[in-house]
Amino acid sequence: MDDMDDHSTTPPSHPAPPLAPKADKDTVRRHNLSLVLRAVHDESALSRAGAAARTGLTRAAVSSLADQLIRAGFLTESGKSFSGQAGRPGTMLTPARTGAAGAGVEVNVDYVSVCVVDLAGTDRVRLTEHLDNRSEPAAGVLARAARFAARALDSAAEQGLHPVGVELALPGLVSQGAVRQAPNLGWNQVEAEEMFSRALLLLRPNSPSLPVGSDNEANLAALAELWFGGPDRRVDHFLYLTGEIGVGGALVVGGELLRGAHGFAGEIGHVVVDPDGPECRCGSRGCLEQYAGQLALLRSAGLDENAGIPGVTELERRARAGDERALGALADAGRTLGIVLSGAVNLFDPDAVVLGGIYRTLMPWLAPAAEHELTRRTVSGLWAPENGRLRASSLAGDAARGAAARVVRRVLADPLAYG
Amino acid sequence: MDDMDDHSTTPPSHPAPPLAPKADKDTVRRHNLSLVLRAVHDESALSRAGAAARTGLTRAAVSSLADQLIRAGFLTESGKSFSGQAGRPGTMLTPARTGAAGAGVEVNVDYVSVCVVDLAGTDRVRLTEHLDNRSEPAAGVLARAARFAARALDSAAEQGLHPVGVELALPGLVSQGAVRQAPNLGWNQVEAEEMFSRALLLLRPNSPSLPVGSDNEANLAALAELWFGGPDRRVDHFLYLTGEIGVGGALVVGGELLRGAHGFAGEIGHVVVDPDGPECRCGSRGCLEQYAGQLALLRSAGLDENAGIPGVTELERRARAGDERALGALADAGRTLGIVLSGAVNLFDPDAVVLGGIYRTLMPWLAPAAEHELTRRTVSGLWAPENGRLRASSLAGDAARGAAARVVRRVLADPLAYG
Repeated sequence: MDDMDDHSTTPPSHPAPPLAPKADKDTVRRHNLSLVLRAVHDESALSRAGAAARTGLTRAAVSSLADQLIRAGFLTESGKSFSGQAGRPGTMLTPARTGAAGAGVEVNVDYVSVCVVDLAGTDRVRLTEHLDNRSEPAAGVLARAARFAARALDSAAEQGLHPVGVELALPGLVSQGAVRQAPNLGWNQVEAEEMFSRALLLLRPNSPSLPVGSDNEANLAALAELWFGGPDRRVDHFLYLTGEIGVGGALVVGGELLRGAHGFAGEIGHVVVDPDGPECRCGSRGCLEQYAGQLALLRSAGLDENAGIPGVTELERRARAGDERALGALADAGRTLGIVLSGAVNLFDPDAVVLGGIYRTLMPWLAPAAEHELTRRTVSGLWAPENGRLRASSLAGDAARGAAARVVRRVLADPLAYG
Repeated sequence: MDDMDDHSTTPPSHPAPPLAPKADKDTVRRHNLSLVLRAVHDESALSRAGAAARTGLTRAAVSSLADQLIRAGFLTESGKSFSGQAGRPGTMLTPARTGAAGAGVEVNVDYVSVCVVDLAGTDRVRLTEHLDNRSEPAAGVLARAARFAARALDSAAEQGLHPVGVELALPGLVSQGAVRQAPNLGWNQVEAEEMFSRALLLLRPNSPSLPVGSDNEANLAALAELWFGGPDRRVDHFLYLTGEIGVGGALVVGGELLRGAHGFAGEIGHVVVDPDGPECRCGSRGCLEQYAGQLALLRSAGLDENAGIPGVTELERRARAGDERALGALADAGRTLGIVLSGAVNLFDPDAVVLGGIYRTLMPWLAPAAEHELTRRTVSGLWAPENGRLRASSLAGDAARGAAARVVRRVLADPLAYG
């Protein structure tokens, strides 16, 4: 469950220089290189003295490690004097803005979003296409996503950034590189990593093949929220909900994803609201998605359910203008969300519930009804609105960025493997 | 979350012999004593050679450690020859049947159960009283539980067993030694550990005061299932449900309780079935308890809802005899359980759901309807009845035994502290 480790099933293909048999000293140095790099990453900028204080290493050790990280292109030093004298007071170490990076590709029901994140965690390239992925077979969708990713990799290269891996964010049950089921895409047993990887290789015959990993999109959005949500909002134990055509979810405990026994935890979109309610694409009836998913929301507000993000924008505009039907649809969805969330809170006792996807912008109209239900239905009595536990996700909380950042964290965990 | 550690808020008052400042060697030996004792405990009986193989310690070290554990009364050796020659082939180490032990006290809505467990994990003393704990204030209930515990301690002493601590299993939200809320008992902010402890001390003025810990009863029942459920049934990732007057729940992940951010996780009894359903004592409406709790089950089968365990026995008898109303009540409750469980499974993705309390005996009539709902409503497709994921708890899965065993595990973790 440690996301500093490489969780993906595909091992990195970038060969690390082989460790000498006298590995002990090398192992320690590799570990310490990671310590220093992560310290600088976490603080955005750090003096050598600051890095020593933060890591517990001596000033001399930090200097030698920092020099190596600078030479290998992972760190840069600002304010260096003209004489080339490094490390004097006032110079700051920062993560390099070029070199190793991570790429994330979110393939969702009605959009694909690719982003490249640098070693500082900054979103440097972003491409998003709104299109209907339900109208094409999985192989076609993944080949298109690969074309899109290839374009983003070209843009990244122009900026001097070289992603060392790609992580796919997929809407459904993901395990061992495959989508076991994605009801809203109609996917079953789709070998997503392999299909994407092959398509990308064909598009870039002269580039080294990139390791490809994958995870559920809500899991990766939750990690993005955890890593980039900002220190003032930071909680380590939360339930993340993402409103899209599907409603995804993820559980974070002690700063790590709770994956479940088979990697399928977090599917809050298929919690039953009404056992005799409308059919759901998952095969059940009356799932939360049928009441609070994007299609249901648009439909009950009197909009075209297939209007996509422009439809959501129109819904927001109408709510802002006081349109009764829009407000009613949002209040109903908020109430249903609140009822289902109260159950999840009673079961899981998180510190917060974070709403992402389309819920982020619709929060002002969803939250009052949702909080009313949470307050009265949560046994612990901790969920009164003034406690601020129901939150909109930060802008950073998106799955593509979480996916790209996971790749970057592998670099941070062992920079030499990518040097 | 490690239940080999002392989790309770009250430190053990049995003073351990103070560690010498040259603690290093002592610390290692204490650790190894625990290793050997736990190995024997886990296997029930082990030769010295077997203990060496299992712990990775040398045969000589194991012999010395075993001798010390025998002298201190934690182990016994069977098949010892008359010459007093120890450790020859054929002799077996077993946990002592006398000496250090653990006591567990479950205070539930309509019963109190006390048990004393020895170092082998065997239930050696058990007292259960059926009575209505709703008719008396918390202080009275806890004083009565203490009287009852004192009797069990007397019985244990007659068998040469000396519990080194008491753990309370309480139906409600428990944290830091207090019951924050127990809707079915009408308890709010009850300092249960302190009240029980004081009452017990008054009853045993000449005995050393015993450290008292506490936890939610479903948590402790789930641990009992985990520890004593038997190797063939063992799963590390499960949802435990206990049907009583309330419906309690617990989540176990990787062999440890998932407690939530505030220790209140697992409250599946208050997941909403129908937002406009009957009022629940927790302040919400339409909670699972109102459909599948003991009172609701008895009532809908046409029995007196306050008939208690004899009522449940009568319900079972009627179901066995084919009584339509009893069968209908059980099928309805099973369906509702299945619907709520499908949501919990979608969220949490356990390997199994274990039903305890009154559900254990009522399982044959609850399971078909529950499994029908689980099969069609669980996204992963892993919950068809033939997969055997919905299970009755073992007989061992009760809260008092889990509570007592938690105390024993503290002894196993550091026997010298209790020597």
